[in-house]
Amino acid sequence: MADQKHVVIVGAGFGGIRLAKDLAKENVRITLVDRHNYHLFQPLLYQVSTAVLSATEIAYPTREFFKNHKNVEFFLAKAEGVDQDRRVLLTNHGELPYDYLVLAAGATTNFFGNESVERNAYAMKTLQEAIALRSHIVHEFERASKLVDGDAAERRRHLTFVIVGGGATGIEMAGAMMELIAVFKKEFHSIDFKEVSVILLEAMGSVLPMVPPDLQQKTIDVLRKKGVDVRLNTAVTAYDGNDLTLKDGEIIATKTVIWAAGVRAQDFIRNCGGEVDRAGRLIVEENLLVRGSDCVFAIGDCANFQHGTERPLATVAPVATQEAVQVKKNIMKLIGGAKSEELGKFVYNDLGAMATIGRGEAVMNGPVPVLGFNLKASGLFAWTAWMFVHLMRLAGKYADITVCLKWVWNFFFGTRLARIILSKME
Amino acid sequence: MADQKHVVIVGAGFGGIRLAKDLAKENVRITLVDRHNYHLFQPLLYQVSTAVLSATEIAYPTREFFKNHKNVEFFLAKAEGVDQDRRVLLTNHGELPYDYLVLAAGATTNFFGNESVERNAYAMKTLQEAIALRSHIVHEFERASKLVDGDAAERRRHLTFVIVGGGATGIEMAGAMMELIAVFKKEFHSIDFKEVSVILLEAMGSVLPMVPPDLQQKTIDVLRKKGVDVRLNTAVTAYDGNDLTLKDGEIIATKTVIWAAGVRAQDFIRNCGGEVDRAGRLIVEENLLVRGSDCVFAIGDCANFQHGTERPLATVAPVATQEAVQVKKNIMKLIGGAKSEELGKFVYNDLGAMATIGRGEAVMNGPVPVLGFNLKASGLFAWTAWMFVHLMRLAGKYADITVCLKWVWNFFFGTRLARIILSKME
Repeated sequence: MADQKHVVIVGAGFGGIRLAKDLAKENVRITLVDRHNYHLFQPLLYQVSTAVLSATEIAYPTREFFKNHKNVEFFLAKAEGVDQDRRVLLTNHGELPYDYLVLAAGATTNFFGNESVERNAYAMKTLQEAIALRSHIVHEFERASKLVDGDAAERRRHLTFVIVGGGATGIEMAGAMMELIAVFKKEFHSIDFKEVSVILLEAMGSVLPMVPPDLQQKTIDVLRKKGVDVRLNTAVTAYDGNDLTLKDGEIIATKTVIWAAGVRAQDFIRNCGGEVDRAGRLIVEENLLVRGSDCVFAIGDCANFQHGTERPLATVAPVATQEAVQVKKNIMKLIGGAKSEELGKFVYNDLGAMATIGRGEAVMNGPVPVLGFNLKASGLFAWTAWMFVHLMRLAGKYADITVCLKWVWNFFFGTRLARIILSKME
Repeated sequence: MADQKHVVIVGAGFGGIRLAKDLAKENVRITLVDRHNYHLFQPLLYQVSTAVLSATEIAYPTREFFKNHKNVEFFLAKAEGVDQDRRVLLTNHGELPYDYLVLAAGATTNFFGNESVERNAYAMKTLQEAIALRSHIVHEFERASKLVDGDAAERRRHLTFVIVGGGATGIEMAGAMMELIAVFKKEFHSIDFKEVSVILLEAMGSVLPMVPPDLQQKTIDVLRKKGVDVRLNTAVTAYDGNDLTLKDGEIIATKTVIWAAGVRAQDFIRNCGGEVDRAGRLIVEENLLVRGSDCVFAIGDCANFQHGTERPLATVAPVATQEAVQVKKNIMKLIGGAKSEELGKFVYNDLGAMATIGRGEAVMNGPVPVLGFNLKASGLFAWTAWMFVHLMRLAGKYADITVCLKWVWNFFFGTRLARIILSKME
């Protein structure tokens, strides 16, 4: 079919996969480009870091989605930029010409230019990072167990875990860390667990900006009850791998700083011929076209959509998937001969927010479909809802079964079976 | 309990774990040393390499076995040798004094001094190696998909997979490879699968030396029917990462040589003060004491036990676990005041052998308990028996559930969900 238009999609995240699936049913040719061969369920990455889930449960082979769609090709490569004049995507494996291009490349960790933190802290955006963090956390307990008769300060340094950032990732990581520590408590007979501490630092005055103040407070209360040292209005200035320096001059001796304080677009996004914001995201029009282009779209975490809202839309999965639905419609309109001005405008339908704080504990806030009122909840009910929503969104029926099984198993037995150190041993 | 004797065990494999579990119930202090923090179910490693199972399903946290036994300490370290005069184990984290020492350190890959093969081939003895091999295999298909319009010879090089060694590992790997390729066939739309080949090279005149000739032939027939190019009496001389040279001068163009042709003891075993055989294994007496010692035992793959048998006992799990049972008795006797001469002699109870050749296909040969006759079987019955026996031996109830589920799922749907490339991308 020589007259098939060629749509190139960069990124096999929530937005890219949804778009490719929707477009696959149309008479177009699609090339999906990603630097990994799997779709990653990023919201559950922290469960890999804390040994709840194994890597393969949240990573789904991208080609598996499209085995029945021969008009979709997968291309394993790193995108490096766009030449809009020549209509080609630049990658580390050569150029890909496109008729329409959709940038759905996601985000990476934002260290806000703090190089010492970037060099020494653990980030939580890729599967490799999550496995490295898990290996490190388990290894720190092994190291501490060898220092039982040694220097107490040095031992505490290995047993102090600092999480920076009170958004959903930081909160969920802190809750999961406390549960992991409860498992270690049964196994590291020689460690005095009074020496173990988990500290959550948040630069702002509260956690979880997307939920109402009473749920924010509830979250802090639950975390503190679990033993997390939650510190608000606390900013970080430097970290050398041994000592974390706070803005007020305090120093925390720790071998583990987990950075969950911000995201920004991938570097190559600046090289795509569009206007970018401070976080490197492409400014998009209401129709999701990159400003100034008539065939390049941007969606999800690498796009800055700000039309009728005070701030750009949040970097969450529902924004990306809803934008994908709109872009699909707009591409089909363009193929049908429509002009840019005639394209549909994107309107975000906010479904609310939820975060789990540990076994049987979560907070949620959002509109209830059909019934039309707003639901705020916490505790076991919110946790069950959280589980249900995440299982619905997970890719693949098989993972649904094992992940559900694992969560229920953990709820009752509190065990963590993925406590495997895969890093190189010293 | 100051008068508790201290038993140091090196290796958390089948032998070491069994021994530590049995000794844990006695009034002794145990230190279990391993360079990894998990017990690895090695017989299923090839299922990680071929994306059937995920790493955490066959790796079980060692400390989890002993959470209720405070007389067992785990020590994460690499053993480096033994000073028998001073009665200390040397490790990369310092010395461990012992009253009794048991070396159960397992085996590593034996390249028989062939350096070019050692440098360029994939081994299959550690979890890291299995994950690296899986990543590589998947990546080769991705690479080939980019060469669709390129050089056919180069493309075939990426699509040729050579397994060296017709023992259980080589056989099982070859069968599993064919199934993995069947999954790829559905997903790599642009690859011509006639260009894909799996070659099994065996230097001897047949495969699976531990089963009778008719089962050996059956195995070869099944593999050939599945599409494996089985070549007997074929030895390898060199491999540079691109071309594999056979003894008869033939060259196979391939990017993938999987070496399953032999094992030897870890290097440090030579540094333990005992006499070693050609494979570096410690020669042990009938009571499993290292020749010349009265308190150092060796069991499993790092021991050479040859009393009343034509060849040393095979490097399989049942030998290691049965030896562990005998060593436990002998250590308790020594603690009770017995002399070396009064220790019990080890007698191996051969339970037979089994190997799976792919979905619903296996061979088995062995005595039937109680009934007392020998059973030879192949096909679905043998496969079901193989599954059952392996699930029984797998550590942890949770893994039993998911691994069983995964095998049954694969049997019906033939899918492979762990096709995740975790290596660094170029």
